[in-house]
Amino acid sequence: MTFQSSTPQASTASQASATSSATSSATTTVPALVTSSAAASFERSTIERRAVGEHDVRIDIAFAGICHSDIHQAREEWGTAIFPMVPGHEIAGIVAEIGSGVTKHRVGDRVGIGCFVDSCRECENCLAGEEQFCLKGNVPTYNGREYTGEETYGGYSTGIVADENYVLSIPEGISLDEAAPLLCAGITTYSPLKHWGAGPGKKVAIVGMGGLGHMGVKIAHALGAEVTVLSQTLSKQDDGLRFGADDYFATSDPATFKANRGRFDLIINTVSADLDLDAYLRMLTLDGSMVFVGLPENIQQFRVFSLTGARRSLAGSNIGGIRETQEMLDFCAEHGLGADVEVIDATMVGEAYDRVVKSDVRYRFVIDTATI
Amino acid sequence: MTFQSSTPQASTASQASATSSATSSATTTVPALVTSSAAASFERSTIERRAVGEHDVRIDIAFAGICHSDIHQAREEWGTAIFPMVPGHEIAGIVAEIGSGVTKHRVGDRVGIGCFVDSCRECENCLAGEEQFCLKGNVPTYNGREYTGEETYGGYSTGIVADENYVLSIPEGISLDEAAPLLCAGITTYSPLKHWGAGPGKKVAIVGMGGLGHMGVKIAHALGAEVTVLSQTLSKQDDGLRFGADDYFATSDPATFKANRGRFDLIINTVSADLDLDAYLRMLTLDGSMVFVGLPENIQQFRVFSLTGARRSLAGSNIGGIRETQEMLDFCAEHGLGADVEVIDATMVGEAYDRVVKSDVRYRFVIDTATI
Repeated sequence: MTFQSSTPQASTASQASATSSATSSATTTVPALVTSSAAASFERSTIERRAVGEHDVRIDIAFAGICHSDIHQAREEWGTAIFPMVPGHEIAGIVAEIGSGVTKHRVGDRVGIGCFVDSCRECENCLAGEEQFCLKGNVPTYNGREYTGEETYGGYSTGIVADENYVLSIPEGISLDEAAPLLCAGITTYSPLKHWGAGPGKKVAIVGMGGLGHMGVKIAHALGAEVTVLSQTLSKQDDGLRFGADDYFATSDPATFKANRGRFDLIINTVSADLDLDAYLRMLTLDGSMVFVGLPENIQQFRVFSLTGARRSLAGSNIGGIRETQEMLDFCAEHGLGADVEVIDATMVGEAYDRVVKSDVRYRFVIDTATI
Repeated sequence: MTFQSSTPQASTASQASATSSATSSATTTVPALVTSSAAASFERSTIERRAVGEHDVRIDIAFAGICHSDIHQAREEWGTAIFPMVPGHEIAGIVAEIGSGVTKHRVGDRVGIGCFVDSCRECENCLAGEEQFCLKGNVPTYNGREYTGEETYGGYSTGIVADENYVLSIPEGISLDEAAPLLCAGITTYSPLKHWGAGPGKKVAIVGMGGLGHMGVKIAHALGAEVTVLSQTLSKQDDGLRFGADDYFATSDPATFKANRGRFDLIINTVSADLDLDAYLRMLTLDGSMVFVGLPENIQQFRVFSLTGARRSLAGSNIGGIRETQEMLDFCAEHGLGADVEVIDATMVGEAYDRVVKSDVRYRFVIDTATI
């Protein structure tokens, strides 16, 4: 792969042949936002995408969401990263070309890509449709390597080529900008809500009202659960209630923990800050679960009695499998759910990162890739 | 209640009237092993048991197991305790007298009492048969108070009076000495094994081969699970395999954690020592749970990735409800399971405590209360 430092220009070498042959042999060069090190800023450059293989689709990316994990990886806060890096695993766009063996998508289809673009397809977790837990390790959409060893580059770009089995269909009824964040923020909250049985008669608390949290509220409400937001302050209360929350509490107020003692069947923790887990666990009812969907860097602490006192659980969930991600997209379309987004230009990504770190976004930045 | 310092003598004041009236108005004075403070030794004394009420049964205690939690409470290691104290919540004996309204037990029946002797009977947990999680707080068999305020005294005694609803039936086929520990060690392991689905096709690890652990192995094996013991050393391996374990590993050997990575559906942790939870969690497969049934005093630590990496859970379980305790006793009788016990005299309790702390018991001390 070659990075070009000259002014980027989309140069789709395969376009000419795409109509004559379903399987193109040519790579494509596409504009992308690239960062060269943990300390560097994003620069507009180009990257080369692989030729469209038999089972590949080439996608013209329309929007790419900015996930907090993009920031962690671009700033190398989660261990050694692969540079240069093109982040982005909340990708929405239109199929531009398909390989000869592709059956799931057609040129012109509205599609998305989430956090991984391949998996071993053979391990028990892959066979169970839980490719997010692939025992060989799946192929991250960026900051990773294909099984061939090639680096992967994400959605801060105008185009991407991926295996059809890791490409999702975005139903009509969700705009592409509001759909992009569903590929990570949506499935990350939908999967544990479904797995832990959120629905009518269940009391669910969502900790944090950021990108993940606001989708958690919308989805939990649409699933029929009673939804409570536990946010640091009440500053986003109006939004939370509009998204479907029945109740909204500030965790900066100690009374919150007393008022909700033993109340929730499920607490979805979307924040990466360190919490007093014992205080949160006491808000769970018998057999209640508190599920981490973020990844706090620090070691977490709890007292065993907080669990044994009511057969409670502390658990963790990580995005979702391909089948469940499609189910989530269909569910969101059916219920008219998308992310609340701020669409930004490519030039604003650095500023957006700083605002995400300060929780100053309602509720997801989405890059209009036409501006890259 | 009066403690007599003179040589104890069973003085069952109600015995004369018991045959003429099903509801006795007289209290009974019974020998007991009493400790007067956290630093004191046990002394033979007497305690007074309440008169047999309409729904009460009076039990002649035959055996009382020594649970590690007896030691924690007698030595006041779990917060302020009530002294003088008569520990013991693994009680097996024979019904000596019943109240006029008693329907569940008859004089001469083989019965047991576990960790609590009453609960509110009104909260959602009590109504669900999960009295161990009574929201009002149940009445501990000792080191607690009845809802009337009266102190409770446990099984290191020759007699006890309790409400029939909190008295279990011990089926024929389990000797009373081997049955006594089932009332705590048995149900403490049976309940989570059932709750988390131990059975054919499931891989269960039992951490620790003490009083709880050895029952965990026996019960998990009888439930049809594949059972692995994770013990500090291999010193009890022969016993473990005899109890039904399929595999046995020393946790002092780092290779154990590598060899069993991603293996278990369920890990029952019976030890109170601090473990490297991340290392144990990595031995769980997708959706696996590690369940604490002991109560480590220290704050526990883990990294969130150990949970999110395979949707794992850390959970806690605490004994079981009355209905499930009866189910456990029936299950054990059906499968010929009892505890492996060392029956001791009342004079040996102090020494037994020291040996329990050193894990030097195979696998439960049981006091022959005739020697009190």
